[in-house]
Parts: sequence; structure tokens; C-alpha cells
Amino acid sequence: MRISDLSRQTGVPVATIKFYLRERLLPPGTPTCRNQAVYDETHLRRLLLIRAFTTIARLDLSSVRALLGAIEDERLSLPRLYEVADRALFAKEPSPGGTGGVEEAQADVDGFLADIGWRVDPEAPGRTRLAQVLAALRLLGCECGIDFFAPYASAAEHLAEHELDLLPPDAAEADRAAAVVRSVLLGVALGAMRRMAQEHVVGLRFGHQRHPAPST
Amino acid sequence: MRISDLSRQTGVPVATIKFYLRERLLPPGTPTCRNQAVYDETHLRRLLLIRAFTTIARLDLSSVRALLGAIEDERLSLPRLYEVADRALFAKEPSPGGTGGVEEAQADVDGFLADIGWRVDPEAPGRTRLAQVLAALRLLGCECGIDFFAPYASAAEHLAEHELDLLPPDAAEADRAAAVVRSVLLGVALGAMRRMAQEHVVGLRFGHQRHPAPST
Repeated sequence: MRISDLSRQTGVPVATIKFYLRERLLPPGTPTCRNQAVYDETHLRRLLLIRAFTTIARLDLSSVRALLGAIEDERLSLPRLYEVADRALFAKEPSPGGTGGVEEAQADVDGFLADIGWRVDPEAPGRTRLAQVLAALRLLGCECGIDFFAPYASAAEHLAEHELDLLPPDAAEADRAAAVVRSVLLGVALGAMRRMAQEHVVGLRFGHQRHPAPST
Repeated sequence: MRISDLSRQTGVPVATIKFYLRERLLPPGTPTCRNQAVYDETHLRRLLLIRAFTTIARLDLSSVRALLGAIEDERLSLPRLYEVADRALFAKEPSPGGTGGVEEAQADVDGFLADIGWRVDPEAPGRTRLAQVLAALRLLGCECGIDFFAPYASAAEHLAEHELDLLPPDAAEADRAAAVVRSVLLGVALGAMRRMAQEHVVGLRFGHQRHPAPST
């Protein structure tokens, strides 16, 4: 198919597709004559992947590039793929100033992860992230012990099992791409769910039923 | 306390504090003499709140401003506060092109939310978000029915109950601020948890135990 067909099928403007080609996020098509090229299903799929990462998960191009690179690198085992994807998403994380009990919170987080038996890289950015959140909540007056996180951990583990049930044990490249994109997109879905669940629960508890009960 | 004390206690540079003052994210201190002012616990708390929003949740200043405005507006009932906070966080959401089955996915999402009995504003951005994710997953070849989201919804509802258990029924302003900041920060925590849970589960299932089992 031609670039205009790619555009029509995906809704991505031709200029944007050309930009992805120049940036080498999309591999070049097969040249037919001067200034023309044809594209195939691989390009279509790759374009959909890029769009999901940029418009729905709102990742910047360098994160997208890192994710695509990891998906394509067949030398990476699946656990390594998840690790590389995780680090790519965290690459630009600013490190907030280390005031206010982050070290103490870090010890609590590490102890907690050991207690629940998770095998997680000592360098996993999630550890620091969690310690920052815990320290900030405490600074802001939330009297929360690390146990406050237990239901989040158990939900996260349950959902990870659910997602990974979709992966065949001998994951081929298409499966690997699917696993990474699912992981990213379902993070977006979970965020949206959480906010809607809050709206629902806070409405039930604190009143003002502005929205009628569903009529199912 | 003086601006230097605020800085020392929070780790936020004086120049940044002055920027927040200019931007009116921080209310002015009480003037003592020319070019000097004193600040109190309110300023300290507000500064911690701003830092949590910007460095940990990585919100931009206009979202922070909207959240702070909603927290301070005591005319907002708690359900409205959550709604305003939700919309503030979504304010800049780009709307991805409407190709590829988003409308069909939207009908599935709306039906699903009615089925599980959530009372959620018909205009809640989460609905669209979810429909975009579902449509993208389908486009990318995931044969997922809307039921695939059920465990996410049930986790989200469970966690919303957990968070809202912390709120007294007669939530005063401090509680309102706490509720919003908890909601935002715990979203970050859940994201981090999810990625670590994936690392853990994928490691168990697909091998290469690079990290030793915890020695608890």
C-alpha cells in the first residue's frame, strides 16, 4: 500500500507518517520509483503501535523509540524486555530533592517488598518512586504505615497475573510487542478506572447523587 | 519563619519558592520590613503540596493551580471536588483521531459501567480514555472483550473504598487537601507497584531468576 493508504487506514496524517519515517520510528518502505514507496502490514502495525504510545499513553518520542527497540531486540528475554521497558518509561524521571524522610521510607519500602516476597531488582525505579510517595504522604500528615500500600500491591500482583495469562510461554515477537503495549495501555485504563471508581464511591458516600442510578 | 527557613525545611530552593510566590501558587507572607516577609505553617504545608504534585506526580503548573483552587473552594462538595480534580488532571488531554472503532468501544465501555453499577458522569473523561484503550488494543490484535477490564474495575473500586475510608464524613479543608493529594500520589504508587509486580510475575513465569529470592 502507499503512504496515503497507511494514512487512511490509521487516521494518521501523511505529514506525521513522513516525520516518523525521517525519525526512523517507522522503517522505510520498499521503493517503487523515485519518491514513491510501498508499505506493508508491518508498517501498518508499527504505526498503530506508535500512535497508541504517543496519543493514548502520551509517551514522548524517545521513550517510544526505546520501547520499540526493546520489542525488536530478540536477544532480550521476556523478563529483560519488561525491565528495559520499565526503565525506558522512567528514563526522564526527575529525582526530587532528598529531603523529608525519603531514606527512612526507602527502608520501609524495601522491607515491605521483601515481606510480600516480590523479586524485584534492587535498582528498580519503582522502589524509589514508592519511597517518594510514602515520604510525601507522611510529610503531608498522613499517618500511614507501609501497610497502607498492601491493598495496592495485592491489586497490582493480581492484575499482573491477569495480563501475563495472555502471554504464551514461547512468546514470539508479535506477542512481545503485544505484552509491552498492553502493559502500557492498561496502565492508562487502570488510571481512568481508578478515577471513575473514586467518583462513584465518593458519590455514594458523600451524597448529592447528581447522576441517576444506571437503569440496568 | 523566613523564606530561607521554608527552603531549609522543604529542600526547595529559595529561587523556586520566589517563583511560586510570583505565580501566586503560594500566598504572600506577612510583610515585616521592606523586601522581607514571614511565613507560617500554612505556607510550609502548601509548599509541600506543590512539590508533591510537581516532582512526584509530575503535574504541570496549570494543573497544580487548578487542584489547589479546587481544594480551597469550600463551596465544592466532596464529590464535586473529586470531579473538578479529575477534570483538572485531564484538561490537556489531546483527543486522538477518532479512527479505528472508538465509537464501538465507547458503547461497550458505557454498557460495562452500567452493568457494574458505577454512577459516573456521562461526560467523565475516563469513559473516553477507556474506550480509546479498548479500541487500540483491538486494533493491535488483542481479542479482548470488555470483560477483560473487569478485574481492573474491581481493583479500582476496592482501592477507592480503601482510600475513602481515610476520610471523615465531615471533611474539613485539611482533609480535602489530603484526599486530593492522596488520590494523585497513590496513582503514582499504583503505577510503580504494577510495574514491579510485572517484573516479579514475569520473572517467576519466564525464568532467569536474576534476583535472589528475598531472605525473609
